[in-house]
Order: sequence, then structure tokens, then C-alpha cells
Amino acid sequence: MGLETPEAVASPRRGMQVAILLYDGFTALDAVGPYEVLCRVPDTSVVTVAKRVGPVRTDTGVLGLVADRALHQVRQADVLLVPGAGNRGVIAAMEDAEIVDWVRRLHKHTTWTTSVCTGALILGTAGLLRGVPATTYWASRTYLETTFGALPAPGRFVESGKIITAAGVSAGVDMALHLAAKLADERTAQALQLAIEYDPQPPFDTGSPEKAGPDLQQLALKLLEDAAV
Amino acid sequence: MGLETPEAVASPRRGMQVAILLYDGFTALDAVGPYEVLCRVPDTSVVTVAKRVGPVRTDTGVLGLVADRALHQVRQADVLLVPGAGNRGVIAAMEDAEIVDWVRRLHKHTTWTTSVCTGALILGTAGLLRGVPATTYWASRTYLETTFGALPAPGRFVESGKIITAAGVSAGVDMALHLAAKLADERTAQALQLAIEYDPQPPFDTGSPEKAGPDLQQLALKLLEDAAV
Repeated sequence: MGLETPEAVASPRRGMQVAILLYDGFTALDAVGPYEVLCRVPDTSVVTVAKRVGPVRTDTGVLGLVADRALHQVRQADVLLVPGAGNRGVIAAMEDAEIVDWVRRLHKHTTWTTSVCTGALILGTAGLLRGVPATTYWASRTYLETTFGALPAPGRFVESGKIITAAGVSAGVDMALHLAAKLADERTAQALQLAIEYDPQPPFDTGSPEKAGPDLQQLALKLLEDAAV
Repeated sequence: MGLETPEAVASPRRGMQVAILLYDGFTALDAVGPYEVLCRVPDTSVVTVAKRVGPVRTDTGVLGLVADRALHQVRQADVLLVPGAGNRGVIAAMEDAEIVDWVRRLHKHTTWTTSVCTGALILGTAGLLRGVPATTYWASRTYLETTFGALPAPGRFVESGKIITAAGVSAGVDMALHLAAKLADERTAQALQLAIEYDPQPPFDTGSPEKAGPDLQQLALKLLEDAAV
């Protein structure tokens, strides 16, 4: 049967393909939250993609996730998921033409193009959010509008055409369950919510900037900066 | 100053050390949810530990996380976190004396010994849960009692002495925020909840077996099995 093409390697199963972009300094939970849901949607396969195959370190530097494919090996996907990062990581990704071009190119043929947290800024850099209702990490909301012409919209995630942008970090889980219902059906998505026992009971009520208030907002940004590499 | 000892290598910063065990077939979100919170607790460092340094594949086989230390390099930690796995992964870990002995040995000197999901079964195998109120993944609750003599307790996580066991997968995030308040203080934990924008709005109300009912329970277990390697 000859050598497998890179595309064949990236598509071991039939069905829907989910490509999760990894890049230096990405935020682990932005990628892993949605992964944990989408990897169990029937007839769907997930692949991690980065500039190079191999470990990619997160924003804190203390965790590495493995990218199984290089960008040039994955030329199309049904679902593209772009996670966010800390300031330095996301700026570096936005300035990286190879990453931005890949996002723009995949988007042309996706069924769904999605982001979590500041991943929306990378979609914005690729020119995908002009005039599009969207959300991002709470601390980057203004930036999304002023720099990329997105239309700020409320909610844990915002669906606009085939683009779904999620709010910060943990919001990727809510978005992925919503997406699972689109890729399969509502009953499957409900079962996947149980599969990850997602019956959240946060110990505090400080998960949004409005609920947390300005002092905790400042402290959150300081803790993020202190732990960043 | 001579060569660094393995312990020194595992302790690049002062302060609290969090060791996250990785093993073949673990569930990614069990580890990454708590990591995303604990890595930003001030004066706390997180390290991933496995039998061998390098990539460890998850229960679905489609994601790899990097273990930065081998078990023998990490001889103590202030916080031990044991994630869960699918059936095959957790059984293999329970039957692996090197893993179970390491958990038992670290536990002697931890400040907190914690598990997420079926990670509790590994704590149980190490003999740490006899007569201890504990929880685990919803589908393994009975097993925890009958096999290890734990006392089933309700809640997203159960704290008993220095042992904290969380329910399935996503419950590790709730537990980690609780733990962050213990390691630092409540204000810091509240800010960390904002840092990960954890204001959950699940699209369905099916995150516990009681809410989901028997049909979705069966479907969830089937989806887990179908995606398992």
C-alpha cells in the first residue's frame, strides 16, 4: 500500500478529526479540558499539533505535553482548537507567522474553529474575528475588541457561525460539552458530562471578574505573572 | 558545591513541593485540573513523577504528558497527588509494587496526600484508606468500600486527616482550590479561582450519576470503554 502520507498518519481513524494546537507557553487546562471531552465523542479522533513533534512546555514551565504531529503534517481538521497562554506565550504565538498561517489555513475547511481563553487572540491575529461576536480571558476582553475588531459578547463561550470562542481556561470544558452535542447529539454530550463527573461545586464564588472584584483581579494577575516563565 | 542530589534536582525552589504521579493510562484532566491551580500557589512547586522520565500516555492513548522525574528521584513531597485512570490503567498501577510502594513511602511524610477519581483505589491499595472517609469516581464507589475498607462519603472531595480524595475527573479542580486555601490562604485560593476563570456553567445537569440516571450511566461507561486503549 506504499508509505503513509502525513495526512494519513494524522488520521488513524475515520470520522471527525480534532486538532489541538500546542505552542510554547500554552495553558495546559485550556487544551486538556476540551481534550477530555472531545476524545470520547464517537467516531472522533484528537491529535495534538505543534511546530515540532515532541514535548511542549506550558506557561509555568513545570509541565510538558507531547505534540504528536507537526504543523505541516496536519493540513486539515474538522475541529480546530486553539488554547490560550500567558502574556509572553500568546504574544510569541501571535508573532509566529508559521502558527498564524496554519490556523488561517485550517480554518478554511474546518467545521468548527474554536479557542479557549487567550487563544482567541491568535484567531484574531489570523483575521478570523473581525466583526465576529467572541469572548476570551476576562483580562483580555478589551484587547480582543480594540485590536481585532471582534464584538465582545457575554457567556462562557460564544458561538458565531462556525467559530466558538470560550472564556478563560476552565471555560473550555463547558464549550467542549456544547461542541460534543453538535458533533454527536445531546444525549452523548450529557453522558460525557457524567463521564468526567462534571458536577462542579467551586469552593468560592470568585470565578468571574465581576464576582471577584478589583482586589482579587489584581491578585489573580499577580499570581499568574509570578508563576509564569 | 558538588553534584546535585536527585532530591535537590526535584526541588528547584524552596517552599512546598507538590508531586503529581503519572502512570500509563492515567486520565489527563485528573492531573492537569489540580496542576493548573496548585502551580500558582505562592512558594509552591509542582513536579510530575513517573516510573521513568519522559512521556506517559493517557487512558485514550491520544495524549502524552511528560514526567520530569522518576519515582526514585522524588523521595518526599509536601503534597502527593494521585490521578485516576480507566479500568486497565488503574488495575495495572494497583498491581505495580514500585508505584504502590512509592505512594506508601511518600505518604509517611506528606502534609497532604490526595487523589482524584480512581486514584483513590491506588491509595487504597497502599493501605491508606482503611476506615477512612473517602470518595472516588462514581462508578467505583462500591469498590472503594468493599475492597479497601474505606468509608464512603458524599461530596466533590472528602478531607479526612491529611488525606483528601476527590470524586471523578473534573472534581480535582474543586479539591485543588480547597487545598490552595490550606497551603496559602482563602484569598489566594479565591484569586486562583478567578485566574482559571472557574465560573462553571455546564450545558447540562448530568454531572453526577444521581442526576444523570441509569441510562446515561450506561452510556457514559460505554463511551469511556470505547475510547480506552
